[in-house]
Amino acid sequence: MDAYSPTPRTQLKRLPTRGSHDRAVVHAILDEAPLCHVGFVRGGSPVVIPTTHWRMGEELFIHMANKSHMMRELLDGAEACVTVSLIDGWVLARSAFHHSVNYRSVVVFGRPRLVTDAAEKRAAFDALIEKIAPGRSAEVRPPNEVEMRATAVLAFPLDEVSAKTRSGPPKDDAEDMTVPVWAGVVPLSLAAGTPIPDETAAE
Amino acid sequence: MDAYSPTPRTQLKRLPTRGSHDRAVVHAILDEAPLCHVGFVRGGSPVVIPTTHWRMGEELFIHMANKSHMMRELLDGAEACVTVSLIDGWVLARSAFHHSVNYRSVVVFGRPRLVTDAAEKRAAFDALIEKIAPGRSAEVRPPNEVEMRATAVLAFPLDEVSAKTRSGPPKDDAEDMTVPVWAGVVPLSLAAGTPIPDETAAE
Repeated sequence: MDAYSPTPRTQLKRLPTRGSHDRAVVHAILDEAPLCHVGFVRGGSPVVIPTTHWRMGEELFIHMANKSHMMRELLDGAEACVTVSLIDGWVLARSAFHHSVNYRSVVVFGRPRLVTDAAEKRAAFDALIEKIAPGRSAEVRPPNEVEMRATAVLAFPLDEVSAKTRSGPPKDDAEDMTVPVWAGVVPLSLAAGTPIPDETAAE
Repeated sequence: MDAYSPTPRTQLKRLPTRGSHDRAVVHAILDEAPLCHVGFVRGGSPVVIPTTHWRMGEELFIHMANKSHMMRELLDGAEACVTVSLIDGWVLARSAFHHSVNYRSVVVFGRPRLVTDAAEKRAAFDALIEKIAPGRSAEVRPPNEVEMRATAVLAFPLDEVSAKTRSGPPKDDAEDMTVPVWAGVVPLSLAAGTPIPDETAAE
């Protein structure tokens, strides 16, 4: 099946033409974005924390300090919401009102599971390193037992999921087309700069 | 006063050296980031929505469709959490465990107020346009009354606020310094591409 089934929470009501439940669309956004924002409830109020994420199949992974408050709240508390956003451009219209943003975002609702199997956990760490720098997981010093225990890995099922995107030029009203101002899109993307080698010398 | 007062929620417990309550640090992150992630509670569960934000003095502004569910939930519901994150680089260490991310983030807790004064609302719209493209608010066709009514502007007080940042090279363990792998930082930043003019012709 190529699409996630909409639920009352993931059925987009506002601007539904911007919505998608297509798996390929969702996967591509999750795989490109370096960060997610994890929302969970603490003392009745939401807390939104940025963290790196990665995807394996139909699960979204995050990691954190083992036995942290956040880990406990995600495993034992109310359902969480994980949102991933990429900004693709400023949309500059001829009217103030029609200014917009080109973006791609994914929202995941659900409860995560704690990854407890050692081999699965190790594979998950490798997958995170591979997301950042393909081939690197085989080159670095692998995690030892203390490090494995210090870090918790949580996996959210990609089940209640939706994507929302905007692309393309501004959509001005017909009567504004002659307003003498530049209109169009300023593309934005996350760009990698020149790598900075660590100068710290071995002792 | 140059710093926000920590509260139990904004006193950083984990890695406190990465935390800051300095107003200048907080303002700079809020002003540079194009997007925030707004967390609020809907039916007992958190919802995290990305949207553009802007700052005027000691308030953080967002806008949305007037009378939308989100507007009602933010004004009438539990406190919200607005998180702003900038990713500055991948930190590639010699050990898998010490890989990290250079980032700057701000977390704001609180309840927003609805901006109802027409002049203040108009100034807020202008400030958003100015954030995207300085000088542009005077050039575009300004919002008319229908458009002003169609959009709600909400302002969060910058009161319960904290910043968290990481910068600099990887911090490997001494015994890993001779692992034969490149180590350092791959800088990341949001880059603007060549503007794409809207080709739509006036009718």
